[in-house]
Amino acid sequence: MDQLIDRIKSDGYVENDEILKVDSFINHQVDVNLMLAAGKDIANHFKDQGITKVVTIESSGISPALMSAMALDVPMIVLKKQPSKILNKDLLQTEITSFTKEINYELTIKNHLINENDHVLIVDDFMANGETATGALRLIRAAHATVAGVAVLIEKTFQNGSSKLKEQGIELYSLAKIKSLKNGKIEFERSVSNPPL
Amino acid sequence: MDQLIDRIKSDGYVENDEILKVDSFINHQVDVNLMLAAGKDIANHFKDQGITKVVTIESSGISPALMSAMALDVPMIVLKKQPSKILNKDLLQTEITSFTKEINYELTIKNHLINENDHVLIVDDFMANGETATGALRLIRAAHATVAGVAVLIEKTFQNGSSKLKEQGIELYSLAKIKSLKNGKIEFERSVSNPPL
Repeated sequence: MDQLIDRIKSDGYVENDEILKVDSFINHQVDVNLMLAAGKDIANHFKDQGITKVVTIESSGISPALMSAMALDVPMIVLKKQPSKILNKDLLQTEITSFTKEINYELTIKNHLINENDHVLIVDDFMANGETATGALRLIRAAHATVAGVAVLIEKTFQNGSSKLKEQGIELYSLAKIKSLKNGKIEFERSVSNPPL
Repeated sequence: MDQLIDRIKSDGYVENDEILKVDSFINHQVDVNLMLAAGKDIANHFKDQGITKVVTIESSGISPALMSAMALDVPMIVLKKQPSKILNKDLLQTEITSFTKEINYELTIKNHLINENDHVLIVDDFMANGETATGALRLIRAAHATVAGVAVLIEKTFQNGSSKLKEQGIELYSLAKIKSLKNGKIEFERSVSNPPL
C-alpha cells in the first residue's frame, strides 16, 4: 500500500538491523486515517472469503484489526497476553516465546468466543519471526475454527515468519514488505514499492 | 447511550460487587459497530472544544478511543504500561497503582508526541477509582498540554473516580453510569437509563 510505504519512508526509523520503529503513526501515536485505509485494503483483499471474525493480539495490532473488522462488518477478538498458565476450563492458552522481547507469555482466549463455524482473519501490525501468528493459529485451531489468512501492515521479509505460515498453508497478506534494515537504511521489496511496468 | 446500556443489560455479567465483565462486546471480543456508535457520541459531545488528540491507555481503551479519534479526525495516542521506570530523556513516566489488579506500573509517553499546543481528550473503557485517568492527566500536564475532559464507556459511580476528576476541574462524560453491582444485579443511575419525562 503506497500510502503506508511513503509514511514508513518519511517517519519510520531504524533502531538496529532487526527493529523498525513506527511509534509516531502505528504503535504509540496512531494515524487513524492511515489505519482506516489499511483496514479497507485488508478487508478488500479478503472480502470474498466468508470471514466471520477478525482476531488480533494485544496491543499494537488492535488499531489495524478494528479497522479491518469494521470494513468486513464482523466482530474483532483481542487475544490476551497472560504472564502465566491459568487453569480454567473456559480458557484456551498457548505459550509464546518472543525473541524480540526475550519473554514468554501465554496467549489466551475464552473458548466460547470462537467455534467451528468461524472462519477467521488474523490481523497484526508486524510480521517478523511469526511466533505470535503461529501461536494465534494454534489457538484458533484448538477452538475448531478455520483460518482464512494473516494480514499485517509491515512484513520483515528477512525474517522467517512468512515461510512458517507457508509451511502450514496459510496466506500472508502484507501491506508493506521490508527486505533489509541494514546500515540504518530501510530497503523495501521491489515488488511492493516499485511494481514492474 | 441506550445502545450501550441495553448491551450491558443483555451481555454484561457481574463478577463481584466491584467488577462488571464486558468481555463479549468491549474487552475481549469487540462489537465494532457499538464502538463506532460510542466514538461518534463521544466526538459529538466534545466536537466544539478544539480537541487536537485523543489519548488512551493500553489496551482495552484503544477501540473506543480509535473510533472517537476517527470521528474527531485527530490522531490517537496510546499511553504504554511499562513494568518499571526507564531513565530516558525522551520519555515522560508516572507511577500508577492499580487497586483492581493490585500492581504498580509506569504509565509512559514519548514526550515529543504531545506539546503545549495540544488540547487532549482522554478516552477509556471504564472509570472506577480514577487512578489511571489521574495518571494520564499528570502525564499530559507534564507535557504542557491541556485537557478537554475524560470520556468513558462505563462509569461505576459507586467508586470515586468522578470526584477525583471533579476536584481537578475535569469533566467526565460517561456513556453508561452504573450505581451498584451488589447481589449480582446491575443497577444503572436513573438519569441515564431512565431519563425523566
